[in-house]
Amino acid sequence: MMEPVFPFDLNLDQRDTGTITQTLHGRLRTAILDGRLAAGARLPATRRAAAALGIARNTMVAVYDLLIAEGYLLPRSGAVPVVADVVGRQRLNRVRAVTKPASFPRNPLWQTIELPSPEARELPPRCFRLGIPEHRFFPHEVWRRLTARAQRRWSRHGFFYSPSQGLPGLREAIAHHVAFARAVSCRADDVVVTSGAQQAFDLLARLLVEPGRTRVAIEDPGYPPIRAAFAAAGAILAPVAVDHEGLCVERIPDDTRIICVTPSHQSPTGVVLSARRRQALLALAERRQCVVIEDDYDGEFRYGDRPLDALQTLDRDARVFYVGTFSKSLFPSLRKGFVVAPEWARRTLVAIRQCTDAHCDEITQSVLTAFIEEGHLARHVRRMRPIYAERREALLDALEGRLSRWLEPFPSEAGLHLAARIRDPDLQGRIFEAMRRHAPGAQSVAEYAMSGIGAPALTFGYGVIDAGDISASMTRFAAALRRAG
Amino acid sequence: MMEPVFPFDLNLDQRDTGTITQTLHGRLRTAILDGRLAAGARLPATRRAAAALGIARNTMVAVYDLLIAEGYLLPRSGAVPVVADVVGRQRLNRVRAVTKPASFPRNPLWQTIELPSPEARELPPRCFRLGIPEHRFFPHEVWRRLTARAQRRWSRHGFFYSPSQGLPGLREAIAHHVAFARAVSCRADDVVVTSGAQQAFDLLARLLVEPGRTRVAIEDPGYPPIRAAFAAAGAILAPVAVDHEGLCVERIPDDTRIICVTPSHQSPTGVVLSARRRQALLALAERRQCVVIEDDYDGEFRYGDRPLDALQTLDRDARVFYVGTFSKSLFPSLRKGFVVAPEWARRTLVAIRQCTDAHCDEITQSVLTAFIEEGHLARHVRRMRPIYAERREALLDALEGRLSRWLEPFPSEAGLHLAARIRDPDLQGRIFEAMRRHAPGAQSVAEYAMSGIGAPALTFGYGVIDAGDISASMTRFAAALRRAG
Repeated sequence: MMEPVFPFDLNLDQRDTGTITQTLHGRLRTAILDGRLAAGARLPATRRAAAALGIARNTMVAVYDLLIAEGYLLPRSGAVPVVADVVGRQRLNRVRAVTKPASFPRNPLWQTIELPSPEARELPPRCFRLGIPEHRFFPHEVWRRLTARAQRRWSRHGFFYSPSQGLPGLREAIAHHVAFARAVSCRADDVVVTSGAQQAFDLLARLLVEPGRTRVAIEDPGYPPIRAAFAAAGAILAPVAVDHEGLCVERIPDDTRIICVTPSHQSPTGVVLSARRRQALLALAERRQCVVIEDDYDGEFRYGDRPLDALQTLDRDARVFYVGTFSKSLFPSLRKGFVVAPEWARRTLVAIRQCTDAHCDEITQSVLTAFIEEGHLARHVRRMRPIYAERREALLDALEGRLSRWLEPFPSEAGLHLAARIRDPDLQGRIFEAMRRHAPGAQSVAEYAMSGIGAPALTFGYGVIDAGDISASMTRFAAALRRAG
Repeated sequence: MMEPVFPFDLNLDQRDTGTITQTLHGRLRTAILDGRLAAGARLPATRRAAAALGIARNTMVAVYDLLIAEGYLLPRSGAVPVVADVVGRQRLNRVRAVTKPASFPRNPLWQTIELPSPEARELPPRCFRLGIPEHRFFPHEVWRRLTARAQRRWSRHGFFYSPSQGLPGLREAIAHHVAFARAVSCRADDVVVTSGAQQAFDLLARLLVEPGRTRVAIEDPGYPPIRAAFAAAGAILAPVAVDHEGLCVERIPDDTRIICVTPSHQSPTGVVLSARRRQALLALAERRQCVVIEDDYDGEFRYGDRPLDALQTLDRDARVFYVGTFSKSLFPSLRKGFVVAPEWARRTLVAIRQCTDAHCDEITQSVLTAFIEEGHLARHVRRMRPIYAERREALLDALEGRLSRWLEPFPSEAGLHLAARIRDPDLQGRIFEAMRRHAPGAQSVAEYAMSGIGAPALTFGYGVIDAGDISASMTRFAAALRRAG
């Protein structure tokens, strides 16, 4: 068997005129110019290339030297040459840059809904950004050790596709974790492992939504990516207002079939859905045969001593899907979350997962399993809780003290962010200006709104900023507001 | 701040009668019985629990002892007790096992399409199963070392969500890899990293298919998961026959808008799409304004010295999406693949990815980047090619020799499997029976068919079986057929 060393046929036996050197040089140059050999590609070593083409090694050396001399290849001392970034690039770009032929097939849905765009903000590492936990206290050493162990074990068995529902051990570990951390009653069988909470929303939207027909109640203001997932499944979104008790259940439209809610810690206002509203929500869901999607994205970090029962715990009717994530308790780029799903929905949910991306990468699942089973997750959450609590105190202190003329914090008992109402809406312009300057990463709650008619408010993350920095920033923020009158 | 140690309120201040010990015992027992404390959950240590509840430690010890005596908790020597698997479990199962209330919302699509079910087959580790590469020659040590390095680097920067399109370094590495390995011309910007080829199919189906309207040509027989992804997006599937030259282009129905094809190595017959058919396919796509999805799932393993150009290379019209995967060149549970996408489609494709699961886990992306950049992927492919080639030779040898009375191999130049036509369809029953017995893992090509009208054939994977075992199995297979007459 002759091993091919160039990714296309050089057809040296079909040359018309010229020497082998000329022919080979011409054909490689053409391949570089038209992009078949892309900038940065490594060419085979002369010895290997010559052997494969059945020519003298000197000929190969001569061809490479010529291409290097002309600037098509870049010499690499002691190594193989790589393809230079030449004019062919421009030609290639021109060819590829054809604007979309209007007549190509396309799902028309994408023209009618707002799709997320990549975040453009450049923020300092220590700031008030939302949704990112602290990395400085993460047990990196433990994670590395468990990874090395998982890899050693994995290297001893053959390669396989693993179950779409998630590794059985991980589902078991998650069931114990949520039973204990959140009093969510479930067995390993009830758990479906997902690539973050976002994939849980996407799978649930695809499972439950009849495109163009199903109305979905969404908190307004609320977490934009859950809206995006439901919109992308063809749902009709019904924004429902949020007040100091959480989602205004009585305002949910009559024909709603799915209710998405963040009861532990509303995103982005941070308020807790009151016990009264929880009962009302489940009663309404029963009356109208709705399902409820409970997004408990940072419920591990609770600062009060009276956590309310999860909706999933209160549900006796198999209508609540409980969605959890490790993005806040561990780290977001882990991309691991889960759904505790009622049995009636599970088989199809897992089959949809199988159609979409088969399963989560196996080694990471094994590492996470060991991390939970050996108590590191519980330990990390226990360690972080007082650290976040101190930051929250520093923030509350400022909001209730030197910033209280302008801002009033929303009641909040959990999570990694806190929001505050602007007392005098007429001052919002200067308040937002001072916020952008002195509290980078903090956001207007309006950025989370669909209808945009809520009272003006600010929201501050405290996942990646120390209590001391919070106090100092808030002092500067207050000083700027005082100066502005 | 009082740290909550039980995941629900024990309300010790609201007890009616009885001692604290009795109240606490009763409430914990109820929580275990109704599943709020699930089997296997670890209770807090007595000292911590007592402190949190503001009671004497001895009281806590007494409560735990009582629950242990009653079988609700399991003692753990020197550690905290865990919740036992008690009768509450049965009650819980009963509540959760409600069959789906017919009136809950649900996308009706799932009632009309065939969804994949988990694979049930139990196979020996060394067998003829398809689609799984060899793990014994994988450079596990290199992978471990690169993982440890990626983790050390990652532990030094803060936590972030990373770009939905994929890490820029990985996209760059993939662009170089496909340019060189497959002559696919692309820049890093053209590459979208996905969780395996399956997610590429899913994202493309969602981007391109108008539910209920768009007809998609699918190879028949063909790879079932790509069918599942398109069906799940609401496509109308049009099965198109495959012969010794690959997809029968002239049989593609008139109103087809999307053509899915495996040109390098048809799945499952292994045939190569001929140069003539490649030109015809692109000409037809141009006439009818179709897009083409080129699935090049194992094109790295080529055994002829004249690889044909990829459709993406031949395309000058931005209508081909090239899908690649590392499931065969590295390992399937890595869950990494990619699309080389035309520019007109890219922004929406990335936005859909963002809605579905945000991005692939970051550490694994970094490991893969280093693995490709440092030449380990190219080296591994170079190392495996002669190993797989030897297995293919052993298989061909048997098919063209001692099995030639019954079987005729399809022409095939690439990949990790080979198929063979059954010469006399009347003998298929006994041939399949002997196959199941002597070539475990091999499959009837009919298992990949939609319409089921193709000629009977067998397909053999050689990813996880040695050449010697192939020869021995084939000898037993032939002997069994001879005995059967």
